[in-house]
Amino acid sequence: MNVGGQPYRTIWLSAEDDRVVRIIDQRALPHEFIVEDLREVGDAARAIADMHVRGAGLIGATAAWGMYLAALASTEDILLRRASEQLKATRPTAVNLAWAVDRQLAAIAAADDKIAAARATAAQIADEDADFCRRIGQHGLLLLAEISRQKGGAPVNILTHCNAGWLAFVDHGSATAPIYAAHDAGVAVHVWVDETRPRNQGAKLTAWELGQHGVPHTLIVDNAGGHLMQRGQVDLVLVGTDRTTRTGDVANKIGTYLKALAARDNGIPFYVALPSSSFDWTMRDGLREIPIEDRGPGEVKHLDGWQDGTRGEILLAPANTPAANPGFDITPARLVTALITERGVCEASEAGIGALFPA
Amino acid sequence: MNVGGQPYRTIWLSAEDDRVVRIIDQRALPHEFIVEDLREVGDAARAIADMHVRGAGLIGATAAWGMYLAALASTEDILLRRASEQLKATRPTAVNLAWAVDRQLAAIAAADDKIAAARATAAQIADEDADFCRRIGQHGLLLLAEISRQKGGAPVNILTHCNAGWLAFVDHGSATAPIYAAHDAGVAVHVWVDETRPRNQGAKLTAWELGQHGVPHTLIVDNAGGHLMQRGQVDLVLVGTDRTTRTGDVANKIGTYLKALAARDNGIPFYVALPSSSFDWTMRDGLREIPIEDRGPGEVKHLDGWQDGTRGEILLAPANTPAANPGFDITPARLVTALITERGVCEASEAGIGALFPA
Repeated sequence: MNVGGQPYRTIWLSAEDDRVVRIIDQRALPHEFIVEDLREVGDAARAIADMHVRGAGLIGATAAWGMYLAALASTEDILLRRASEQLKATRPTAVNLAWAVDRQLAAIAAADDKIAAARATAAQIADEDADFCRRIGQHGLLLLAEISRQKGGAPVNILTHCNAGWLAFVDHGSATAPIYAAHDAGVAVHVWVDETRPRNQGAKLTAWELGQHGVPHTLIVDNAGGHLMQRGQVDLVLVGTDRTTRTGDVANKIGTYLKALAARDNGIPFYVALPSSSFDWTMRDGLREIPIEDRGPGEVKHLDGWQDGTRGEILLAPANTPAANPGFDITPARLVTALITERGVCEASEAGIGALFPA
Repeated sequence: MNVGGQPYRTIWLSAEDDRVVRIIDQRALPHEFIVEDLREVGDAARAIADMHVRGAGLIGATAAWGMYLAALASTEDILLRRASEQLKATRPTAVNLAWAVDRQLAAIAAADDKIAAARATAAQIADEDADFCRRIGQHGLLLLAEISRQKGGAPVNILTHCNAGWLAFVDHGSATAPIYAAHDAGVAVHVWVDETRPRNQGAKLTAWELGQHGVPHTLIVDNAGGHLMQRGQVDLVLVGTDRTTRTGDVANKIGTYLKALAARDNGIPFYVALPSSSFDWTMRDGLREIPIEDRGPGEVKHLDGWQDGTRGEILLAPANTPAANPGFDITPARLVTALITERGVCEASEAGIGALFPA
């Protein structure tokens, strides 16, 4: 998507030096736009662990490019395996991470020119991610256009949580793809952007993305969504996912489940947009099986933002207050109206998903 | 309640000089504990308007003591009336404010010793507020003790939203009163404290209160409560209210409704604690009738806290991002398990409330 009128992806191979992978350091957004060079697998692992990059698709693509950087350093089996473990250990919840690393390991193992294979596979994973998101946008566009038609062309009010935007993928985003597609097609949309505590990816990233692309939006605290739904100010909820079971249980950023409950209580559709790489085909019970990352008390008690032209941090609570920080929650399939995938829209159930993605 | 091991109320007459009223300047909490002297009615009006004190019960008590300070300066009718208007103009929406000021005017008018009457009435209003909250605590204690018994004495996990603590009243608080009563009676409790965006009264005030009184607690972001309920880590939700209709619809800090939905989805009781002064006997439909304050975008985008020993503020979102900030939401009576009042526990319905408070 565009940044300052110039098209960007979130990760790319340097045009000047094909031993260098470039990313946007998302920690500095929305206040600074910093491009960072990754030169070895450790750089990629740090970028994922310390959240220079985040979001299911982009974590997968960064891990894939990380395996390319590892292969550049050595194609020895034991070192590649060590690199794969280093990458997999960075974040537990997003399923795309292990999926991308394992796909790289298999591709490299099968190839004669292992570096060329790693490079081609990383590029393919990134291109696929962007293409899948673009298709999600086309399928979701039809849903938004239909609501727009029912509203006589009045803006379609979409509530979204966290950042399932192009910054979370290689391009387009999952939840944002239908929004960008609709906006670009002339369907009037307006987005309620949950700020998404504790890391405020909505306030920092989604608001910035939508602003850069000219999509009308309003920032709200996470507490406000239920009230807006009660007042008829939300037409649909549209979120992404870090991992969805084959039965349609959705792991997404903490707080998503509360919005799904409010949507159901108010008869508002709740959609989850995902590329098929976010399905975990091994799981049937999200609540029991999906691991939830505990991110520690720091980001609950301390908040960083912008202050007099520099980044600043404040302490919100008493210094000795204990805090807990689960990073994700599970929205049971029963609360999900439908899934929007690269192959089309389906019911959040084993039958619905299986019809689009036969084993 | 206790601060540093010493018992405090939120407002009291100085023991050294009975022409001085003392309050805790809550703007500096949790990082500084500042006791402020009020010497004239203008000091009391400023303390309410600039939110040195907040919370319906405490606003009423501060206004009552403000009328005593006015009477000390002059018991002339025209000056007392001017003082009453000055106090009422500070926060025109707080129902306890006008009620306390009018009660003072009547008491002073009827008395020979007008200063003594003003002093006695202020003390009575404050004592009543504390006593109603204490009774709420005793009624709520029975509920917590029963859950504790069912859990074989394991800590009762209570989730609360915003600050309905002793800092919002003269003492004890509404939602916190049963918690303090249980803790003091040796019933093991643990409180999940919602930080309560956008103003973070949970992180700043409730966490501090509970810490000072030695009640085990853990701070969480507002998004986390649903997840904790899904995992069986919440035994009940217990909140206060700014206004409750005679039919049991509850207006409370924005986000309360989402917790009520999650409680119902997980079979967890959802209690609202309130002194009878928080009932609005004129209303029957909370969603239609209770006005919701729009507090403007500032406190969504800017956050203040503590930084290197001073107060600091950061900007979270792009500077030009639009933001909306509804301050309260309505939890329909159907989601409320019961109300805890100074007269006992009742169903959140016109019949239930009417049985405790006959017309």
